[in-house]
Amino acid sequence: MKITPDLDAEKLGQEMYDLIVQLYPICRSITGEGIRQTLRALQDIIPLEIHEVPSGTQVFDWTVPQEWNIRDAYIQNASGKRVVDFRQSNLHVVNYSVPVKARMTLEELRPHLYTLPDHPDWVPYRTTYYHEDWGFCLSHNTLTGLEEGEYEVCIDATLAPGSLSYGEFYLPGEIQDEFLISCHACHPSLCNDNLSGITLAAMLAKTLQGVERRYSYRFLFIPGTIGSITWLSLNKEQARRIQHGLVVTCVGDPGNSTYKQSRDGNAEIDRAVAHVLKHSSQAYEIREFIPYGYDERQYCSPGFNLAVGSLMRTPNNQYPQYHTSADNLELVRPEYLADSFEKYLKVIELIEGNRSYINLNPYCEPQLGKRGLYQPIGGYGDNKSFQLAMLWVLNQSDGKHSLLDIAERAGMAFDMIYAAAARLEETQLLKEQGS
Amino acid sequence: MKITPDLDAEKLGQEMYDLIVQLYPICRSITGEGIRQTLRALQDIIPLEIHEVPSGTQVFDWTVPQEWNIRDAYIQNASGKRVVDFRQSNLHVVNYSVPVKARMTLEELRPHLYTLPDHPDWVPYRTTYYHEDWGFCLSHNTLTGLEEGEYEVCIDATLAPGSLSYGEFYLPGEIQDEFLISCHACHPSLCNDNLSGITLAAMLAKTLQGVERRYSYRFLFIPGTIGSITWLSLNKEQARRIQHGLVVTCVGDPGNSTYKQSRDGNAEIDRAVAHVLKHSSQAYEIREFIPYGYDERQYCSPGFNLAVGSLMRTPNNQYPQYHTSADNLELVRPEYLADSFEKYLKVIELIEGNRSYINLNPYCEPQLGKRGLYQPIGGYGDNKSFQLAMLWVLNQSDGKHSLLDIAERAGMAFDMIYAAAARLEETQLLKEQGS
Amino acid sequence: MKITPDLDAEKLGQEMYDLIVQLYPICRSITGEGIRQTLRALQDIIPLEIHEVPSGTQVFDWTVPQEWNIRDAYIQNASGKRVVDFRQSNLHVVNYSVPVKARMTLEELRPHLYTLPDHPDWVPYRTTYYHEDWGFCLSHNTLTGLEEGEYEVCIDATLAPGSLSYGEFYLPGEIQDEFLISCHACHPSLCNDNLSGITLAAMLAKTLQGVERRYSYRFLFIPGTIGSITWLSLNKEQARRIQHGLVVTCVGDPGNSTYKQSRDGNAEIDRAVAHVLKHSSQAYEIREFIPYGYDERQYCSPGFNLAVGSLMRTPNNQYPQYHTSADNLELVRPEYLADSFEKYLKVIELIEGNRSYINLNPYCEPQLGKRGLYQPIGGYGDNKSFQLAMLWVLNQSDGKHSLLDIAERAGMAFDMIYAAAARLEETQLLKEQGS
Repeated sequence: MKITPDLDAEKLGQEMYDLIVQLYPICRSITGEGIRQTLRALQDIIPLEIHEVPSGTQVFDWTVPQEWNIRDAYIQNASGKRVVDFRQSNLHVVNYSVPVKARMTLEELRPHLYTLPDHPDWVPYRTTYYHEDWGFCLSHNTLTGLEEGEYEVCIDATLAPGSLSYGEFYLPGEIQDEFLISCHACHPSLCNDNLSGITLAAMLAKTLQGVERRYSYRFLFIPGTIGSITWLSLNKEQARRIQHGLVVTCVGDPGNSTYKQSRDGNAEIDRAVAHVLKHSSQAYEIREFIPYGYDERQYCSPGFNLAVGSLMRTPNNQYPQYHTSADNLELVRPEYLADSFEKYLKVIELIEGNRSYINLNPYCEPQLGKRGLYQPIGGYGDNKSFQLAMLWVLNQSDGKHSLLDIAERAGMAFDMIYAAAARLEETQLLKEQGS
Repeated sequence: MKITPDLDAEKLGQEMYDLIVQLYPICRSITGEGIRQTLRALQDIIPLEIHEVPSGTQVFDWTVPQEWNIRDAYIQNASGKRVVDFRQSNLHVVNYSVPVKARMTLEELRPHLYTLPDHPDWVPYRTTYYHEDWGFCLSHNTLTGLEEGEYEVCIDATLAPGSLSYGEFYLPGEIQDEFLISCHACHPSLCNDNLSGITLAAMLAKTLQGVERRYSYRFLFIPGTIGSITWLSLNKEQARRIQHGLVVTCVGDPGNSTYKQSRDGNAEIDRAVAHVLKHSSQAYEIREFIPYGYDERQYCSPGFNLAVGSLMRTPNNQYPQYHTSADNLELVRPEYLADSFEKYLKVIELIEGNRSYINLNPYCEPQLGKRGLYQPIGGYGDNKSFQLAMLWVLNQSDGKHSLLDIAERAGMAFDMIYAAAARLEETQLLKEQGS
Repeated sequence: MKITPDLDAEKLGQEMYDLIVQLYPICRSITGEGIRQTLRALQDIIPLEIHEVPSGTQVFDWTVPQEWNIRDAYIQNASGKRVVDFRQSNLHVVNYSVPVKARMTLEELRPHLYTLPDHPDWVPYRTTYYHEDWGFCLSHNTLTGLEEGEYEVCIDATLAPGSLSYGEFYLPGEIQDEFLISCHACHPSLCNDNLSGITLAAMLAKTLQGVERRYSYRFLFIPGTIGSITWLSLNKEQARRIQHGLVVTCVGDPGNSTYKQSRDGNAEIDRAVAHVLKHSSQAYEIREFIPYGYDERQYCSPGFNLAVGSLMRTPNNQYPQYHTSADNLELVRPEYLADSFEKYLKVIELIEGNRSYINLNPYCEPQLGKRGLYQPIGGYGDNKSFQLAMLWVLNQSDGKHSLLDIAERAGMAFDMIYAAAARLEETQLLKEQGS
């Protein structure tokens, strides 16, 4: 599998950005029409299967909550003017607020109002999933501009038995071992977290559809936490097939790539991502696993302990716009989306290509010259490096070292080692282990 | 076991210092009345058992020596004035000197005189345990002030069959596995090395008497080298129960804490001490094991290879007052004694509390909210840290990681991880491994 | 085995240098009279066995080539003057050139001429072993001085069935496990690479002849690449006896010692060389194995994976004179040859002496005093260090640690640890493991 060389990054970035623009206005939550509508939109790109899990379903220690839907919400002043209006931004209502219809003074209202004094223009994003409550989020400037007096407060929402929706797309490969790509799709009008992730996952699924795959790929578009718990609960045995996984989030901002390792920290996915980032010619950061973050928390719980990390740009909580109205269409840019996409693809290509080979001529070096292997190889202008790559592959292919092991020991890019192995395999100097 | 929070450091330090003042004048040696008197004094604090091992007893490669006792010693000049007088300081006589009663010229005497030219006011400490000899230690100033001529030299000592005395105190715990606290009690008027160690061990024994213990504790007050060899020889099988141990010495000076690792270097005691020092907010040093020092040499001999390290302040040989009359009541201070005591106690608390747990809800995270575990916890004001501690404990409690392992991986203090585990155990989310 | 203390470095360096001077003029190649003549010269020093392997012999993936011999070669200008003359330097002809006798213009000749524009005075060294071709090497100054016009070109060489010659010298030891010293002997008038290696290997063989040996030693003087492949092919099973090995090359220049590790990187030879260099009081460099360089490539091929490294001074390719006429009698100096020799000998002494011992008194320390082991030891003036060395040996001799392990853990020179072990063995406190 070799896709990255042919990527049209500019076109791809624009396509991803356009999808974000399309999904941005929808008021998503962990249940309800918003996420359902989002999943349906993704069906235009990939044949996503939409699952509905009824409210009340027991999923491990949790219960699928009642379904939340919202039509309108506002705070209206005495003059009948909406000073806070859900129709302007779905962030204005605390996500999962219970219905309210009341008149109250500003004093009474205040405990239900959330602002960001440090960023007085921005509207925060707040939720109250597992604790019945209600509230409004607004800019601090709006709050300070409110006059004392009575306000009409309305949240026209329903919290009622329904279901939790999630999208799943399975791409079978040569083997049943799986590569999981998981993203949370429950955030309302927030771009980097996580429309960027939804978009990257969808485009990745579309791209992988068209190529030969060794691994089988599973794409999950789920509400955060409860969604991964639900999927794992319904697929407890199936989950054991997951050999590698990435949680996709925050992949559209201008920050450096950041990789959060899996619980084990030295799984193949961890080493593959580290290799790709190291050879990206860009600054990057590797962070150790901590049991806090996104759905990797569930995949990496001790009962599963799956090799799932998270490849981001700027991680959650590390950029000021995080979980505010400023995580918008200006924060994410086509070029960063495309760059993230390319890194994901490179990781996948690496893991697809990371096999162990057996040197069929293990006693001394084979005579490369008589096989024409001292000739320059197309695409690898640096013939000397390519020869050294071949020597490394021959020297290390004793069944104990994968191509990634060899690339790391040689200090060379995986692509070069992979190409060297391919060339040696063509000339019958190498065979795949177990073949 | 949780004692440190209630320590009254000031009171404790003074109590320790007072004991040092009381024991300081006694002329201890590896045998004889001095060490016996010291052990009897400790019986006022703890019900110490005093063992007597007869001279001539074969203990591994060694033989318990004859008992040494001294009544008086001096060098008297022609005018009848004692220019060196044992009654002024027991350091003046080379410890274990054979009896002498003679007149001799200064020239003849000189080979038996020991001084410290670099510290002309100080009297050195010298011994001649296993080689029959005699001598005097004096300040270099005194030596240079001596006039030529004849001197009367007297060491009124006896070296005769008797016994070697040591003190032992055993505190049974829930399990038979033992924690050893060993100190040498053979040094005469020297405070840091090792009245500070004797005192700390005695106070620790007294303190642990009053609390519930998982481990059994064994306290040894022994003459250096020959004492540990004797005890190990008489308790060869029993010694195998020792799981953790510390040799206590040099714990009263103002220097930073220094930990000398056990022979293995990565035993639980080594990791526990390192953790306590790391979280002490004080500078400290960790040193690798070397087969030179105090009784850890014997405990760590290859036939035993016990996990015994030594937690000191400034180690032997590293401070100028070491083995001189300047290792006195001014060098050791109550506050450093108390600080050392507290560190010992924290190490013990850590090892007492260091267990492995099993997450009873290992598939995905449990829902902490419905159990009230998102509430602030008394004493752990930083609620977010406490929640993260709980997540770490849940994530890592797969039977392969102790609480200390988890604390180290999380980069958190053991206390926080321990409290999180306790809270999770209360809510039935965790159980101790093997229970 | 303890030879180094008695080395006369000056005499030795001169003797080595003289041998280089003697061998320098010979036109060696991978086959032919040059290498044969060289091997015969070595027979004056050691009873070297010269093997002849017929052209056409299949050796693993390779074939022993036709034998190359050369009598004369030149480029003669219109005036009959030899502008390039093999009789002045054998580097002038591309090694293994096919015979040529022709007249051609400078234009026609040019593709067959090799120079070093960056070093216009130097003549490069080029070969064409496995590809039939011909050419001349000359200084860039000579080339630029050539006038257009016709030249007479002559290479009076033969490439015909014959044999590949190599020298082998086997020194049996107490055990059949072998220590391999291998050098390539195929380079013509080049001093550092590799007359220095040939000389060092020969002198080492001569020296080891005269001493008791635990290991058996095998010295190989072979043409590069094809020689080691040939030897390994003819001695496939025998090769498994090689426990340690060094490829000797570039050992006469003024650069720092450089050690290229074996494929494993942590073999006893790797640790021994690192120890010797660390305690040499000289700057040095350790390099990881790469499958490029000299015959270690073959010894370290995965089918053999022998513990063979290479101890050099400045490695191949890292000094400007490498593979040019400037790698001459001025580049190598007696003192560097002697220094390299001494390091090789120290490595051998270390490996000869590196055994594991059992402390016969493992319970506590033995009483060293009663055995006179607290007395100063001849040659080890620093008595305290020697005592500490004895304590280390006693403490670590549990059958799991070799003397090198102990030296490394103690941070002491191997010699000191070795002497301490010897002293303890004399006093029956230690016995060799397995004895």
